[in-house]
Amino acid sequence: MRKIGLLTSGGDSPGMNAAIRAVVRTALYYDMEVYGIRHGYQGMIEGDIFQMKTTDVANIIQRGGTILKTARSDAFKTDEGRKAAYDQLQKHGIEALVLIGGDGTFRGAVEFFKQYTIPAVGLPGTIDKDLSGSDFTIGFDTAVNTAVEAIDKIRDTAEAHDRLFVIEVMGRDAGYIALNSGIACGAEDILIPEIMTDIEDVLCRIDSDERRSKSVHILVVAEGDEFGGAAEVAKRIIERFPKIDTRYAVLGHIQRGGSPTYADRVLASRLGYAAVLALRENKTQVMTGIVNGDITYTPFQQVIKTNAGISTDMIEMIRVLSV
Amino acid sequence: MRKIGLLTSGGDSPGMNAAIRAVVRTALYYDMEVYGIRHGYQGMIEGDIFQMKTTDVANIIQRGGTILKTARSDAFKTDEGRKAAYDQLQKHGIEALVLIGGDGTFRGAVEFFKQYTIPAVGLPGTIDKDLSGSDFTIGFDTAVNTAVEAIDKIRDTAEAHDRLFVIEVMGRDAGYIALNSGIACGAEDILIPEIMTDIEDVLCRIDSDERRSKSVHILVVAEGDEFGGAAEVAKRIIERFPKIDTRYAVLGHIQRGGSPTYADRVLASRLGYAAVLALRENKTQVMTGIVNGDITYTPFQQVIKTNAGISTDMIEMIRVLSV
Amino acid sequence: MRKIGLLTSGGDSPGMNAAIRAVVRTALYYDMEVYGIRHGYQGMIEGDIFQMKTTDVANIIQRGGTILKTARSDAFKTDEGRKAAYDQLQKHGIEALVLIGGDGTFRGAVEFFKQYTIPAVGLPGTIDKDLSGSDFTIGFDTAVNTAVEAIDKIRDTAEAHDRLFVIEVMGRDAGYIALNSGIACGAEDILIPEIMTDIEDVLCRIDSDERRSKSVHILVVAEGDEFGGAAEVAKRIIERFPKIDTRYAVLGHIQRGGSPTYADRVLASRLGYAAVLALRENKTQVMTGIVNGDITYTPFQQVIKTNAGISTDMIEMIRVLSV
Amino acid sequence: MRKIGLLTSGGDSPGMNAAIRAVVRTALYYDMEVYGIRHGYQGMIEGDIFQMKTTDVANIIQRGGTILKTARSDAFKTDEGRKAAYDQLQKHGIEALVLIGGDGTFRGAVEFFKQYTIPAVGLPGTIDKDLSGSDFTIGFDTAVNTAVEAIDKIRDTAEAHDRLFVIEVMGRDAGYIALNSGIACGAEDILIPEIMTDIEDVLCRIDSDERRSKSVHILVVAEGDEFGGAAEVAKRIIERFPKIDTRYAVLGHIQRGGSPTYADRVLASRLGYAAVLALRENKTQVMTGIVNGDITYTPFQQVIKTNAGISTDMIEMIRVLSV
Repeated sequence: MRKIGLLTSGGDSPGMNAAIRAVVRTALYYDMEVYGIRHGYQGMIEGDIFQMKTTDVANIIQRGGTILKTARSDAFKTDEGRKAAYDQLQKHGIEALVLIGGDGTFRGAVEFFKQYTIPAVGLPGTIDKDLSGSDFTIGFDTAVNTAVEAIDKIRDTAEAHDRLFVIEVMGRDAGYIALNSGIACGAEDILIPEIMTDIEDVLCRIDSDERRSKSVHILVVAEGDEFGGAAEVAKRIIERFPKIDTRYAVLGHIQRGGSPTYADRVLASRLGYAAVLALRENKTQVMTGIVNGDITYTPFQQVIKTNAGISTDMIEMIRVLSV
Repeated sequence: MRKIGLLTSGGDSPGMNAAIRAVVRTALYYDMEVYGIRHGYQGMIEGDIFQMKTTDVANIIQRGGTILKTARSDAFKTDEGRKAAYDQLQKHGIEALVLIGGDGTFRGAVEFFKQYTIPAVGLPGTIDKDLSGSDFTIGFDTAVNTAVEAIDKIRDTAEAHDRLFVIEVMGRDAGYIALNSGIACGAEDILIPEIMTDIEDVLCRIDSDERRSKSVHILVVAEGDEFGGAAEVAKRIIERFPKIDTRYAVLGHIQRGGSPTYADRVLASRLGYAAVLALRENKTQVMTGIVNGDITYTPFQQVIKTNAGISTDMIEMIRVLSV
Repeated sequence: MRKIGLLTSGGDSPGMNAAIRAVVRTALYYDMEVYGIRHGYQGMIEGDIFQMKTTDVANIIQRGGTILKTARSDAFKTDEGRKAAYDQLQKHGIEALVLIGGDGTFRGAVEFFKQYTIPAVGLPGTIDKDLSGSDFTIGFDTAVNTAVEAIDKIRDTAEAHDRLFVIEVMGRDAGYIALNSGIACGAEDILIPEIMTDIEDVLCRIDSDERRSKSVHILVVAEGDEFGGAAEVAKRIIERFPKIDTRYAVLGHIQRGGSPTYADRVLASRLGYAAVLALRENKTQVMTGIVNGDITYTPFQQVIKTNAGISTDMIEMIRVLSV
Repeated sequence: MRKIGLLTSGGDSPGMNAAIRAVVRTALYYDMEVYGIRHGYQGMIEGDIFQMKTTDVANIIQRGGTILKTARSDAFKTDEGRKAAYDQLQKHGIEALVLIGGDGTFRGAVEFFKQYTIPAVGLPGTIDKDLSGSDFTIGFDTAVNTAVEAIDKIRDTAEAHDRLFVIEVMGRDAGYIALNSGIACGAEDILIPEIMTDIEDVLCRIDSDERRSKSVHILVVAEGDEFGGAAEVAKRIIERFPKIDTRYAVLGHIQRGGSPTYADRVLASRLGYAAVLALRENKTQVMTGIVNGDITYTPFQQVIKTNAGISTDMIEMIRVLSV
């Protein structure tokens, strides 16, 4: 194998650049050529492809975003689109692919690989950490720390005013960011999609805290909680407790950016390095991951969203620690 | 003068604790007693007052929020409330006041001082920087840096996706935070209350950038812009340019919290120190400020909201730098 | 069990306060009383002991250092010292202990527990991560991120001047901080105690980089590397390559402080919670830890320094990624 | 004027990239061509010159260091060197220069401009803030904040161990960084070159604090203090007070790097913009600066090192606030 293509797809996450760097440098070390494909599958279709040198990845390990850019591609869901994409790979002589992204990135590729035979290895790049096959995903650690820094700041002003704050963090299908940022910030309550929200329970705990003169409350809500987002929750609290000074905040897109933490950089470096070694060992259509500290490989078809590790025990702990 | 009372009032701002520390330590140094009044004027009315020792202000210089807490007080706007407040001061033997807050803090006190004679000195504590009588206010520097860090992160993800982002920062009456964070983040456009927003102009500049294939746009909007907030602006952009991937973000309350920057800590320390010296020199009903590097004193009645220093020249510069 | 004593010992590490908070709140939740012992074993001997309330641990989860302070104690190594310590525990009615610290903390206690029977559970609190019985220790994640932020800054100035920098990070017996910060910052070389440093090899790699016009070099050295610290290494480089602009920096004590990352706060919270549950289940003389995501208990005698997980494979990866 | 050359010289400082961006974009806006000269005057001699486009300065406003790199040049101090430099300018058709650097940058140019007539405007880029002609220099605000964050972290561990720390910050000729970081971190004492250090006084204040059981001390020392650096000071303290646990730390090169603060980015943007306008207005051999908020121009010959604004009053305040 001499020429590999590399792309990032789906939502961007901090550490993707560190992964790109690791793939490029490892491949060059083993005398492969690397072709960067811009804007994910869409760029593959459009032939937005360029050869990458070691200087292209100099000084990017610490930068958020992705220098290869990312995009959605409706065209790639069509036969014509996939054909055009394959033609571009052929045209550039690309013999294998490295794909960095979330579950959609790998699911999106399954159909492609049914039709066109080309070796491919994936890396889990998503802030949501909700992929089977890896204990951590590239970007999660940074996203939680970003959320924690923001919630710490909001707590300052909540304390100053004796306010109740409902804070919405990212996580459409999974509560990992909410759970971990909530524990880390000493949140009084955490609402996540994995656990049915009983709003009466939430209100009851607020009432009980109020009676004990606990004047500051932080509730962390995952955006994907089935009850609704921070605005919804705040509305219900205000209805019930009009005297409590209640506000809400949606942290939003800041959680996707920023310089990656060491953990995300090291994870991205290890996985990028492993992905190229995997290609050399003729592994294909697998996502590299880290399980219990060791590199693992999971077939693309088996990479699904998962909520492993979120249990009612953790919620119980939160309640105990916020007394 | 032997006993002084100290309170924070209005919205909290980073550096208020550094100011509290400076006032307490300077007063103790000069053998005065300091009484902390919690929750601003409301706490004065309710007698939520305690004597402060040097240990009360140990290790707070770097902390956001205010250990004295802050609150609004409708009661203080009534004769009864002010009488109750004065009675509490009498009861504790408090002979002078140091007030940390915004224009409302000082205006709110004017009526009180008409009725009751007690020396008082103020410190400008607001993230909005829109007070006459001081080039800087305690908290502004930190708030802008917080906004800048957040916008930098959002730019990472905007770059990765070629998106247009409309970002709303604080500033109900003044555009200082928007102007400075916008320049610092290389924003393509900035909408502030001081300058009438011509939305057609804004849309026209976006169109022109698009034609030049400038794929990333950051628009910074002050919450108090007369056209509307980020949601409004984004809506109009989406209507006109449905193909541009447009998002908006409201930075919100993170801008009030966090460990203060050196500039806010030094400003707060200098003003707190100066406030106590001013009381010793029998200055009263003045706000200490910094003008061109020097300590100044402005009578409470003359402390008003102002937008000095925001000119169309600055906006011109932004346009030039974002080409 | 009704009354437990709590102390921090050895070098402080970020997250100790989060652990203290978790222990106190969990214990209070289960109707135990908690007695804080200041300055570690020395404070136990001197009776520097106070009852802790939930308010004592309010707003400390995000703070570096340890509110219980820490200290060495030579006296505790003597029979008299240990007797005095035990007498103090008796005097305060303390029936069990929670100890937060490194291997010295637990080894130091073994003799004590031989002489005096009192249940005790430990938490691994050290930035060095070199304890058997836990995949992570409280403070490590924060310390590496602090080192990474510092090295990123130094790289800025190294790039500007085309300099070679030798940067010394903490780690007297273990290279975890050096290895992880080095990978995360794209260091060209990493010197750690686990791997014998062949200085000729190091110089040879520099020479080879120079020939390839790689103008910036970052070498990360663990303070415990057997060849010597950053000053030593820089000296040898300057001798060999007088034309290379070579500098060194010792990051030092900044690595011990700062607001803990989410990972350290969550780890500390989980371990503190687990420690109290362990005492309730009559586990004793064990350190709580996290192995593969699950809580584990390791007898104090078996808690030793270890360098598990540092292999020549990782070093190989660093060489590949820094080409 | 159609073609301008641009270089950075001397020690790098955060915000230089923001200044480069502002110069390039303003010049392009006014239909000038900009030629980047790498490695300062040395690159001018060697002809390391390239035309800059708007994309060269995209996404650099937030980055530390200087993309144009900087270097010392002994050759530029010779007639031959200056002739070679001028020949290169001629060769590239460069008609004017923008110089970003410290006093050495402008002094170094005086001889050059005596021999060769070419318009030039300078920008004050140094973390030391010790230039006449500008209230602030590009990089100072960031450097102080970096120092403050580091000292805050060290204070955490100092508090945990009841230690005395002597911390050395940058400032070879000026105490601005020491003074401001010291005030901001609540340092107990500050030693700066502007004020003769009486070590007996320093020791006496430590003794007095000890008697009052003030267990934590932070002393901030400017590297250029005439008594010596942190190691020297710590040595004397240890000799006198062997029982105090005394350590020292040299913050070093981290102070030069990192993402610039808003203040440095805005300052750099304003000065870069003003520098190009100045060239258009035929101003030459002047440094742009900010005095009392307004843009000023100071002839290169009059730009000297200065310590304006450091007075014994500030030192008095520090003593009062650290009681």
